[in-house]
Amino acid sequence: MLLSFRLSGLVELLGGERHGDDVLITGVSSLEKAGEGELAFLANPRLRAQLQTSRAAAFIVRPAESASLKHPHIVTRDPQLYFAQVAQLLHPRPLAVAGIHPRAVVDPLAKVAASAQIGPGVVIEAGAVVGERTIVKANAYLGERVEVGDDCLIHPNTSVHSGAFIGDRVILHSNAVIAGDGFGNAWATDHWEKIPQLGRVLIGNDVEIGSCTTVDRGALNDTIIGNGARIDNLIQVAHNVEIGEHTAMAACVGIAGSTKIGARCQIGGAVMISGHLEICDGVTVMGGTLVAKTIREAGVYSGSYPMQTYDDWRHNAAHLRHLDELAKRIRQLEKEIAVLTLPAE
Amino acid sequence: MLLSFRLSGLVELLGGERHGDDVLITGVSSLEKAGEGELAFLANPRLRAQLQTSRAAAFIVRPAESASLKHPHIVTRDPQLYFAQVAQLLHPRPLAVAGIHPRAVVDPLAKVAASAQIGPGVVIEAGAVVGERTIVKANAYLGERVEVGDDCLIHPNTSVHSGAFIGDRVILHSNAVIAGDGFGNAWATDHWEKIPQLGRVLIGNDVEIGSCTTVDRGALNDTIIGNGARIDNLIQVAHNVEIGEHTAMAACVGIAGSTKIGARCQIGGAVMISGHLEICDGVTVMGGTLVAKTIREAGVYSGSYPMQTYDDWRHNAAHLRHLDELAKRIRQLEKEIAVLTLPAE
Amino acid sequence: MLLSFRLSGLVELLGGERHGDDVLITGVSSLEKAGEGELAFLANPRLRAQLQTSRAAAFIVRPAESASLKHPHIVTRDPQLYFAQVAQLLHPRPLAVAGIHPRAVVDPLAKVAASAQIGPGVVIEAGAVVGERTIVKANAYLGERVEVGDDCLIHPNTSVHSGAFIGDRVILHSNAVIAGDGFGNAWATDHWEKIPQLGRVLIGNDVEIGSCTTVDRGALNDTIIGNGARIDNLIQVAHNVEIGEHTAMAACVGIAGSTKIGARCQIGGAVMISGHLEICDGVTVMGGTLVAKTIREAGVYSGSYPMQTYDDWRHNAAHLRHLDELAKRIRQLEKEIAVLTLPAE
Repeated sequence: MLLSFRLSGLVELLGGERHGDDVLITGVSSLEKAGEGELAFLANPRLRAQLQTSRAAAFIVRPAESASLKHPHIVTRDPQLYFAQVAQLLHPRPLAVAGIHPRAVVDPLAKVAASAQIGPGVVIEAGAVVGERTIVKANAYLGERVEVGDDCLIHPNTSVHSGAFIGDRVILHSNAVIAGDGFGNAWATDHWEKIPQLGRVLIGNDVEIGSCTTVDRGALNDTIIGNGARIDNLIQVAHNVEIGEHTAMAACVGIAGSTKIGARCQIGGAVMISGHLEICDGVTVMGGTLVAKTIREAGVYSGSYPMQTYDDWRHNAAHLRHLDELAKRIRQLEKEIAVLTLPAE
Repeated sequence: MLLSFRLSGLVELLGGERHGDDVLITGVSSLEKAGEGELAFLANPRLRAQLQTSRAAAFIVRPAESASLKHPHIVTRDPQLYFAQVAQLLHPRPLAVAGIHPRAVVDPLAKVAASAQIGPGVVIEAGAVVGERTIVKANAYLGERVEVGDDCLIHPNTSVHSGAFIGDRVILHSNAVIAGDGFGNAWATDHWEKIPQLGRVLIGNDVEIGSCTTVDRGALNDTIIGNGARIDNLIQVAHNVEIGEHTAMAACVGIAGSTKIGARCQIGGAVMISGHLEICDGVTVMGGTLVAKTIREAGVYSGSYPMQTYDDWRHNAAHLRHLDELAKRIRQLEKEIAVLTLPAE
Repeated sequence: MLLSFRLSGLVELLGGERHGDDVLITGVSSLEKAGEGELAFLANPRLRAQLQTSRAAAFIVRPAESASLKHPHIVTRDPQLYFAQVAQLLHPRPLAVAGIHPRAVVDPLAKVAASAQIGPGVVIEAGAVVGERTIVKANAYLGERVEVGDDCLIHPNTSVHSGAFIGDRVILHSNAVIAGDGFGNAWATDHWEKIPQLGRVLIGNDVEIGSCTTVDRGALNDTIIGNGARIDNLIQVAHNVEIGEHTAMAACVGIAGSTKIGARCQIGGAVMISGHLEICDGVTVMGGTLVAKTIREAGVYSGSYPMQTYDDWRHNAAHLRHLDELAKRIRQLEKEIAVLTLPAE
């Protein structure tokens, strides 16, 4: 690690309040693993005891932990965020090593910034544009007229098809597929006719898209991912979906066609969202939920079947198929009770 | 766009009935976005009002919309299908530019049709066969003895392994994996022994397979995908699965080993289908359903937990674990009521 | 097929008891498809009738089938395992053809064993280490300082990032992504800050990882997959997950961050496991279950909504939203009945 900071230097850059010696920080780590020169943070007060046993050089803590903590530390209201910022300082994004690798294949009609780094095996088609300091790693593919902004990082084996327009500081992880055809088929008596997919994929600035995630191009209108959105691995974003700014979604999510998701939503892992819905700003959906209707009010939503032992589940699930009948029997009982209790008055 | 058609030319090729001026069509678009020279269609009668505000040059509509529509239009019973056909005329599949890119690596024992297009970085192993006018794009991989028919389109970074036999006019989207090993393991006292996967993957004609979809080779028998099937993104097709002709499945579906799915089924997104089942022809399964038993009758099937606010869900889901007990209490109440009502007669 | 064995030779190598002629075996197949020189096995007693119609040269059967079987056969307690071992003998893993393909790009600071096979289009970065007889196939990527052990098989288009340490005899299937960044974000007033992902991915010996599966690097600590684990296709293993030895998981599973799964677990397809949980050794989870709490006891767990016809499901699911109210009505009925039955005594 070549970069290092004193605690006082960190406070100068990032704020917070320093307590104890102004030690030199050369790395970040977890409370358990941290050693010489390393900074750790405590976000969860229940892990407070680890502050005593950790061998970290210094800590980032909430105000409540400061008084009893003898070791050097920085006090801040959000230790995890502060830690993220320190980690970014110590582990900055890789800098582009300007140039096109001799084993890359770049069409003469593509426009690649002189400061960009194009790795071996990369293929860039005619009309594509790659911005300043953007890194395109080994064997990635940029189709015709794709536009990629400045300071992006495109990981190996990623496929970006014609029709994709990507902002600045975007990260595409390995084997992601951007602007593949949407799933459009029209039934024609005895077979499916393919509906040509003619829309685009518009990805804003500061977006991160995970490994093996697929973002389909629009059918006619565009598929849109807003600024600052965070999309994890193995997620399907179908044609004409719109995802609002700073919305985050955990892995294995599927979003069907034309659904619009608002800004600052948090979508849990394995959530599946039907097509042609709207989800307003500020919605949280818990993992494993199937969203089959529009959500118009910010809040937390859920809908998953609880796990049980197999035997318990088997007995319970049997009744699930007959809830309608159980409800009728309750109604019948209520009627009979009403008759019985009536004459008693 | 170089291609263009007059409405009369479209009617001659595709049928339907022309009303109004015989305008020139140079593109297709949505009702909202369409402009000069563009054709749009109305499939959903609830969006009828958009016909008045759209700036499209002409429309495709159902007979019911025709009388009140002053603009040039074509009347047909299925506007979406008609639109798909027009879009195909205006946006035909890319034509192969015959030849093997100097940066492709084609084994001398592979047989590649002279009319095929093999892109940069493509690797084709010994014994593989590529048919007439088939396009294999950048960095795709065709393993030993793979056979690909005529007029196929294989997108970048796709991996097709030894054992795959692919028909004509098939589209494989980026980063799909065809004929990887099935998941076969036999427990041996204290570890898993791999069961070599020796079957093939047989893909019919006119099949489309989505991005990051995996179709495993059979264990001993073959994995089979019938003619005209449409398989979306991020789908798992396990070893020895059979998918019937013209069956369509939306993204994020998983099909476990040896399950047979009939013809003309429609499988919704995120449906998970257990192994060794049979699903007959003409079955529709709604998104998010777990199919754990054989389906012998055509129809629509479903089984997903409804979404609620987190608080409501939490209260309801608590009872789910105790449905068996609730059912017993209802039975008990019925017995007691029976005793009470008996003497009253 | 060049390899062949007499039944007596198989019994000498693998144990079991031979009955009937000592026929020559040149291949393995299923009961239905087996022909001349082929060995088939019967695992499921319900398929016993197929022994009579199969044209296999010999069979592997349980002791119970032996007496009535006139054809040559081997008797063993676990025919499927025995079959797997015979199949491995007849279809051994491909041997590495030592050497680096001229179209591979191997950094001069990488250490590739002389006996390893590096395919065309492979990119290996500085500091990476590839062990003896390991095969890296076309267009795969090994990042800086990645270490891959001996006798591994890395399939085409796979991406292995800096931070991955892979044991011996590991198989990585196509388009898998190892050691991509975990999903780490800290909210900063109005946007997400990326939390640099600094941990590693440690993969033990004899592990198999499926196509399009993603195993993220740890945030600070490591993501760990134990010896002998079997991970199918399209699975998400998030940062800091630990998977115990010989645990097997079927396709489409998702495991959220920091969850620890024990040894010898069997996780069914499409199981989703929340973050920060522990699952002890020897747990089986049935397909489609959402695991949202820690499991401390070995056993079989389940939790999925049963499939019904759409109409039945619609009626039943309506009540699901009101289970809490149904439970209250039952309680109310019980109270009223109690009042009614009391005076009758």
